[in-house]
Amino acid sequence: MNANNTLGVDAPVDDRYTIGVDYGTLSGRAVVVRVSDGAEMGSAVHEYRHAVVDRTLPGTGEKLPPDWALQVPSDYVDVLKTAVPQAVAAAGIDPGQVVGIGTDFTACTVLPARADGTPLCELPEYADRKHAYVKLWKHHAAQPHADRINKVAAERGERWLPRYGGLISSEWEFAKALQVLEEDPEIYQAMDRWLEAADWIVWQLCGTYVRNACTAGYKGILQDGSYPSQEYLRALNPDFAGFVAEKLEHPIGQLGERAGVLTAQAAGWTGLREGIAVAVGNVDAHVTAPAAKAVEPGQMVAIMGTSTCHVMNSDVLKDVPGMCGVVDGGIVAGLWGYEAGQSGVGDIFAWFADTSVPSEYTAEAKRRGISIHDYLTELAARQRVGEHGLIALDWHSGNRSVLVNHELSGVVVGQTLGTRPEDTYRALLESTAFGTRTIIETFQTSGVPVTELVVAGGLLKNQFLMQLYADVTGLPLSTIGSDQGPALGSAIHAAVAAGAYSDVREASATMGKIERGVYVPDPSRSKAYDALFAEYMRLHDHFGRGGDDVMRRLREIRRQAVAP
Amino acid sequence: MNANNTLGVDAPVDDRYTIGVDYGTLSGRAVVVRVSDGAEMGSAVHEYRHAVVDRTLPGTGEKLPPDWALQVPSDYVDVLKTAVPQAVAAAGIDPGQVVGIGTDFTACTVLPARADGTPLCELPEYADRKHAYVKLWKHHAAQPHADRINKVAAERGERWLPRYGGLISSEWEFAKALQVLEEDPEIYQAMDRWLEAADWIVWQLCGTYVRNACTAGYKGILQDGSYPSQEYLRALNPDFAGFVAEKLEHPIGQLGERAGVLTAQAAGWTGLREGIAVAVGNVDAHVTAPAAKAVEPGQMVAIMGTSTCHVMNSDVLKDVPGMCGVVDGGIVAGLWGYEAGQSGVGDIFAWFADTSVPSEYTAEAKRRGISIHDYLTELAARQRVGEHGLIALDWHSGNRSVLVNHELSGVVVGQTLGTRPEDTYRALLESTAFGTRTIIETFQTSGVPVTELVVAGGLLKNQFLMQLYADVTGLPLSTIGSDQGPALGSAIHAAVAAGAYSDVREASATMGKIERGVYVPDPSRSKAYDALFAEYMRLHDHFGRGGDDVMRRLREIRRQAVAP
Repeated sequence: MNANNTLGVDAPVDDRYTIGVDYGTLSGRAVVVRVSDGAEMGSAVHEYRHAVVDRTLPGTGEKLPPDWALQVPSDYVDVLKTAVPQAVAAAGIDPGQVVGIGTDFTACTVLPARADGTPLCELPEYADRKHAYVKLWKHHAAQPHADRINKVAAERGERWLPRYGGLISSEWEFAKALQVLEEDPEIYQAMDRWLEAADWIVWQLCGTYVRNACTAGYKGILQDGSYPSQEYLRALNPDFAGFVAEKLEHPIGQLGERAGVLTAQAAGWTGLREGIAVAVGNVDAHVTAPAAKAVEPGQMVAIMGTSTCHVMNSDVLKDVPGMCGVVDGGIVAGLWGYEAGQSGVGDIFAWFADTSVPSEYTAEAKRRGISIHDYLTELAARQRVGEHGLIALDWHSGNRSVLVNHELSGVVVGQTLGTRPEDTYRALLESTAFGTRTIIETFQTSGVPVTELVVAGGLLKNQFLMQLYADVTGLPLSTIGSDQGPALGSAIHAAVAAGAYSDVREASATMGKIERGVYVPDPSRSKAYDALFAEYMRLHDHFGRGGDDVMRRLREIRRQAVAP
Repeated sequence: MNANNTLGVDAPVDDRYTIGVDYGTLSGRAVVVRVSDGAEMGSAVHEYRHAVVDRTLPGTGEKLPPDWALQVPSDYVDVLKTAVPQAVAAAGIDPGQVVGIGTDFTACTVLPARADGTPLCELPEYADRKHAYVKLWKHHAAQPHADRINKVAAERGERWLPRYGGLISSEWEFAKALQVLEEDPEIYQAMDRWLEAADWIVWQLCGTYVRNACTAGYKGILQDGSYPSQEYLRALNPDFAGFVAEKLEHPIGQLGERAGVLTAQAAGWTGLREGIAVAVGNVDAHVTAPAAKAVEPGQMVAIMGTSTCHVMNSDVLKDVPGMCGVVDGGIVAGLWGYEAGQSGVGDIFAWFADTSVPSEYTAEAKRRGISIHDYLTELAARQRVGEHGLIALDWHSGNRSVLVNHELSGVVVGQTLGTRPEDTYRALLESTAFGTRTIIETFQTSGVPVTELVVAGGLLKNQFLMQLYADVTGLPLSTIGSDQGPALGSAIHAAVAAGAYSDVREASATMGKIERGVYVPDPSRSKAYDALFAEYMRLHDHFGRGGDDVMRRLREIRRQAVAP
C-alpha cells in the first residue's frame, strides 16, 4: 500500500505525524508522534470539567446512590477542542503534517444514545435522569444484575462464559444495560444504541459508528462472531430479549483499521485537516501493549494507574478462572489476547493519602517539596519485609480478577496502637502486588505462561513500588519507554490506519519503546514476601470465596440504611 | 469506732477531708474530698515526665522491641510532690484537716525491687537494663510466657485456672515475671520483690509493704489463700520454682484497711501531716465501683478511658470464660468481685485521631474550637446505623476479654474509595461497644446476671458514644456523678482507713455519686446494631478462636523481621 497515495499528503515520509488521544478517568491526553520512529513531539492534557460524577447529579444536585460513577460526554469533546490543538502547538509542527488520529478509552465506559449518536443526557427531557449519563468503568452499582447474568449463564451452560473466566463483570455492557432497563425502563426504551464511549468518540471524529473489536469482545460478550442468545436474554428479563438485536449489534472494526476520515466539524474542533485517517477505537490498556513493544506471547503488560489492567498475548487458548476475557485478535491480530485487571490500585493509594494521612505528614512533605506519596514511600522503604505486621486486601474498589466481584471491599488486618501511616501505606502497596501475583499464578496454573512483567502507566515512577512488584512476583520487570503509553499506542494505531505500516505488530516494532529487565527480584525479599503472600491468599479466599460473605452483607446493610 | 479518737484530729467532723490519688497511664491525679458527703473540693494533675516508655530506654536510647511498655517509678513520686499539695491548695483547705490518703493504680503494673523497696532501675548498675524498669499494664511482650502458663496449667488441671476465665493474661504478674527470668536472669536474681506499683506507692507513703488483696487476687493468682504451687512453677521453668516463696508472698491487706500512717518523708513531699492514715492500695477500676455507688450485684461498672475495665459484684460464683478474674471481696467485702476488660478503647480512638485524620479535618476542628474527637463524632453521628458499611475489631491493643490474647490486633473490613475518616472512626467506636456487649453476653450466658451498665471515666463526655453503648448493649446506662471516679474511690477508701466509716459500702452510700438511666436504648437502632453485632461476632470468632491465626503469625513475622 502506498502511504502517500492513500493519504494524499505532500510531506516527506519522515515528516509525517499521527495523534494519539488517551481518554483516562479524569482527563484526556493528546500526544503528537512521529510516524517514522515513534518520537513523541508534544502533548497536552485536558481535565474533564465534571471529573467523575459520584456524589450528585450535575444540574439537579440529586444525591447518587452508593457505588455509582458517571461522566458527562461533552467533557470528552472538550479534549478534542483543547488538548489536540495544544499538543500540535507544543510539538511545533504544521497541523497539515498530521496524517491520522487514534483514540483509546477507559472501558467498559458506556452510554445510552439516540440513533444519531446523541447521548440521552444531552436531551433536555432526560438531563435530570441519572441513567441517561455515561456509566464510567468504575460504576459498581450493577453487581446484583451481574450476579443474575452469571447465575443464569451458568445454569444454562452458556458457551461464552468460560471465555470470561466464568464470570461477567458488573462493569461491563450487559450488567450496566440490565441495570438501566430495570431501574429506569423509560431511559432504556429511549435509547437506540448502547455505546462504548470508545466508539462514541470515534463517531464524533469521523461521523461514522464503528464498533471496535476489542470492547465488543472483552466487554460486549462477542465470541466467535455472535452475542448471547435472545433466549438467554429473555431468561434474564423478558424485556431484555431484544437488547442485542435492537441496541447493541453493529458492524465490527478491527484494531488498526480505519473507521473513517476526519469530518469538517471535527477538523474545526481539532485544527487538523479534514479527511485524515481516524482509527477504530480501542481500550487504553490494550493499546499500550504495542506502545511497549510487548506483543509476544508471555509478555504481560500491566498498565498501572488508578487501576491496573493486565493484557497479554498468547498462542494458546485456555480457560483461565476469573480473568476478564480472552478475545481472538483482541490485542493484535493472530494471537489470543487475554485481559485481567485490578479495579483499584493507584486509586487506593490516593484514597489513603487523601483521607488517612495526618497533617504533620502533609506538612513535612510540603516543606521538602515532595508529594505525600513520595514521602510515605520514603518512610515505608526503610522497613524490612513484614516489619509493619500488616496484611491488607486491595479490594477498596472491588475485585476484577480473579474473583470478579465488586461487592468486595478493603481489609486491613494487624493494626496496633503502634501502627504508623507509612505502615498501612506500605501494606496497601504490597496488597496490590499480591493482587497481581494472584492473577499471574492463575494464568500459570491454567497453562498460559507468563514470562515477563512489562509495566506501563503512572505508577512506574515509584521505583520502590516497582522493585516490590518484582520481589513479590519473582519476575523480571521491564518498563515502557514512554510516559504516555496509551496515547503512543493510539498514535501507532493511527499510523496503521493511515497506511504507514502494514499492521500493528510492524508499527509497534518501529514506534514502540521498552526498557528490559529494569528491576530484578531480590531472592531474600522474595522469600520473605512468600510468607506474607500466603497470609494474603488465606484472607483472599476467606472473604472472596465464601468463607465469610460479610462484605456482601455489609453492602446490603448499607443500601438499606441509606434507602429513603 | 470513734473517728476523732482514731484520727486524733481536732477539726469538727464536717471539716475532715481525705485525698484520693489516682495513678493513670500518663498522669497522676490528686483530689481532695470532704468525708461527710463526698464533695470534691479541689484537684490537680501531674503528667509523668517519661510518660509511657515504648520506643527507647531512658538514658541509653536502646530501641525497645515491639509490644514493650515501661514506666519510671520516680514519676510516681513526683505526683505526690506536686499534684497533692496543688490539690490541697486548690481546695482552699488547711492541710491539717486531711485525715487520710488513699491511692489507686493501673494494673497489672509491676516492678522488680530490692528488699527495701528500691526499684532495680534506680540502681546505677541496672539503669541500662530494660527488665529493671516498671512493666506497665499494657506491656504485651510476655504473650509467649502467658501461653506456656496457660498450657501447663490446663494440662495439670490447676484449680485456680477457671477463676480467671480459663486464661491467665500476659499482662499479669506471673507472665511478666517469667519473661524477666527467661530474658534477663541476672535481673531476676537481683530482685528481692516483684511488686505491684499499687503497693510500691503505698510503701513510699507509709514505709510499710502491704500487698493489697485486689491485685494479689486478680493479677497475682491468689485464690482461697494460696498461690500456684512450687510443682507447677517448676514445670514452667525449674528456676521459677521459688518465685512465689522468694519474691511474691507477703501479708495481704484488705481493701479499705489502713496500710500504715504517713511517714515524715512522705509528709514532707505532700505537705500533709505525718501520721495520717494511708489506705491499702487498690486498682483504678475496682476503686471506682464505690465512687459510682455501684456495689450491688448486677451493676456492671465500665470505666472507659484509654482502656475499659469492667467490674461487677455478684452473690454467685460461676466460671465465666475469658473474664479476667473473680476474687472473694475483690471489690467490696462479702461479694464476689468479677473483673473483665477491653485492652484498648479510648487509646484506639486517640490512635486514629493522631495517625489517620487528614489536615482539613484537624484544621476545621481547630477553626471551630472543638477537639478532633468532637468533630469526628459530630460527622459520624449524622449517619444511620450501617451506613458506613464497615465492621472493625477493637483489638489494636490486643484482647483482654473474652479471648485473653494480646497477639490479636485490629481489623477494619469494608473500606472503599468512598470511605471517609468519620466512617472508620464511627466503626471503631462501634467496635468497642460490640466488645463490651461480647463481655456482657458472656457473663449472662454463664449465669452471672448483668442488669445495668454504669459508666465512669473520660469517655463519659461523648454523649453519642454513650447512646451508642446503650443501643448496642440494650441496657439502660447510668453514669457516675464525678469526673474523677477513681480518685474519689480512693478518697472513700482513705475515709474508711481513717475510721470515718465502718466499711466501704457504708462510705460509698454517703460519698459516692451516680445518675441513673441517663441513656436508654432506642429499639430501632438496637435492632439495626444486632445485624452488625452478628458480623462482628463472626469476625471475632474467625480471627480470635482459631479460624485464622493470621494475627499471631503476623506478630511472629514482625518479630523476626526486626530481630538484629
